[in-house]
Amino acid sequence: MNKTIAIVGIGLIGGSVALKCKRAGFAAKVMGVDNNPDHCKQALELGLVDEVLSLEDAVVAADLIILAIPVGAIASLLPGLLDKVNTQVVIDMGSTKSLLTDLVAGHPQRGRFVASHPMWGTEYSGPTAAVENAFEQKAVILCDVEKTDADALDTAHQLFNVLQMRIIQMNAKDHDVHAAYVSHISHITSFALANTVLEKEKEDNAIFEMASAGFESTVRLAKSNPEMWTPILMQNRQNVLDVLNEHISQLRKFKSCLEKENWEYLNELMSNANQIRRIIQ
Amino acid sequence: MNKTIAIVGIGLIGGSVALKCKRAGFAAKVMGVDNNPDHCKQALELGLVDEVLSLEDAVVAADLIILAIPVGAIASLLPGLLDKVNTQVVIDMGSTKSLLTDLVAGHPQRGRFVASHPMWGTEYSGPTAAVENAFEQKAVILCDVEKTDADALDTAHQLFNVLQMRIIQMNAKDHDVHAAYVSHISHITSFALANTVLEKEKEDNAIFEMASAGFESTVRLAKSNPEMWTPILMQNRQNVLDVLNEHISQLRKFKSCLEKENWEYLNELMSNANQIRRIIQ
Repeated sequence: MNKTIAIVGIGLIGGSVALKCKRAGFAAKVMGVDNNPDHCKQALELGLVDEVLSLEDAVVAADLIILAIPVGAIASLLPGLLDKVNTQVVIDMGSTKSLLTDLVAGHPQRGRFVASHPMWGTEYSGPTAAVENAFEQKAVILCDVEKTDADALDTAHQLFNVLQMRIIQMNAKDHDVHAAYVSHISHITSFALANTVLEKEKEDNAIFEMASAGFESTVRLAKSNPEMWTPILMQNRQNVLDVLNEHISQLRKFKSCLEKENWEYLNELMSNANQIRRIIQ
Repeated sequence: MNKTIAIVGIGLIGGSVALKCKRAGFAAKVMGVDNNPDHCKQALELGLVDEVLSLEDAVVAADLIILAIPVGAIASLLPGLLDKVNTQVVIDMGSTKSLLTDLVAGHPQRGRFVASHPMWGTEYSGPTAAVENAFEQKAVILCDVEKTDADALDTAHQLFNVLQMRIIQMNAKDHDVHAAYVSHISHITSFALANTVLEKEKEDNAIFEMASAGFESTVRLAKSNPEMWTPILMQNRQNVLDVLNEHISQLRKFKSCLEKENWEYLNELMSNANQIRRIIQ
């Protein structure tokens, strides 16, 4: 409790973390760091942060530094940041973990870093998208915790308890495989579905009059920010390719059923898919 | 107002229509017809219908007959039903329209039939899934209305006004093309995504611990009933195949970007998909 927290990247994720840490009394003070002057202004106006500082000044003043920026920027920033860290704890919130943990594997201050991935997000971005109880009941994955100092890991547990998240620990390689299956592929299918329908709309602009809730739910992730998703897919390229190949081959089974009018097998494919009920409510 | 309504199929759709028609005072009496004795019992207990009758008895007693059964069953039942109809109005709620309108195109009682598709549903089924205000603000498509008698069309407009839907009219062929794009393909992608992940789960059962909201929204339609969806995909086979081929080719573009590490084009594909914001909120 009573931490001085630096949030690097005051957008959807950083803003939501800031809000909860302040309201729950976990943070005595929240300092915001962001390259985007509009975001800094909004974060101050919305009361997400108490002040805006440069990264250098914030690092010196903080007990806890939270990186909530795109994973490409985390990769660029993390090694140099650890160079400047003494007793501070650095927690990242990126959607990929292997490249980051590999990057700092041999760093003398590796123990101060906690590799984390809170499994929450929306298709919106920026400080105005922040939500106080965003993370409640969601999972957070902590990776390669044996490389983290005990006190730093303890601070991470405190943070995620304040955010009311379910903490799961696994190694970074497994995380990236799983993330490809339960998050990254969903984004690709949504982006591709949006492009499929937008392509058709060029010749037929009445098509969206009848868009339904089912369509909206499968396509809403297509509103996600490419500046965030390009580096995620870069860093998790091989796992995502494996899952995408499997997904295309599953779609081809549906295609083949339709082509051959094999309705029995089509019914079987859908019945098998119904087993997802075991997993999601 | 004060209609005597027969609802054939008292499930998610039929039950929701029944509930609203009773509560809004549009129906003086709602008679339920269903092959499933459990559904009949539940519909009576939930107060969705006033009594349960055979189809024959309900047709004789009704002013308005609503068909809310799978589209294969509608196709089997509709011509014989119109044989028995005099002044009654028959409205179907199926997700495909061309085969049905073709089937009864030359029927002497064609004028009593209104081909409709209310654009609402959930992944759940049965009377217990019924929701009173389900259809509010949603679109309903009425097809080939010039083949329907003026008074029957008027009754359909009354019904869908009571359900508070936006009425859109188009021909059955256009409807089926559009439905393939904004509904049927979403279901196939969800079913295929569920199968992709369930396949992986066989070797790695920890994978779902981290399933997120994004995953849930893209995969929830995979819980849909295969007995409902097989006949829809049978009847709209050619349109669905066209859209599925286009969707697979859109996915291949993402695959190619990942294979060739063409991050600029990947970013462009996602930015293009963001245009879906124009369409869905």
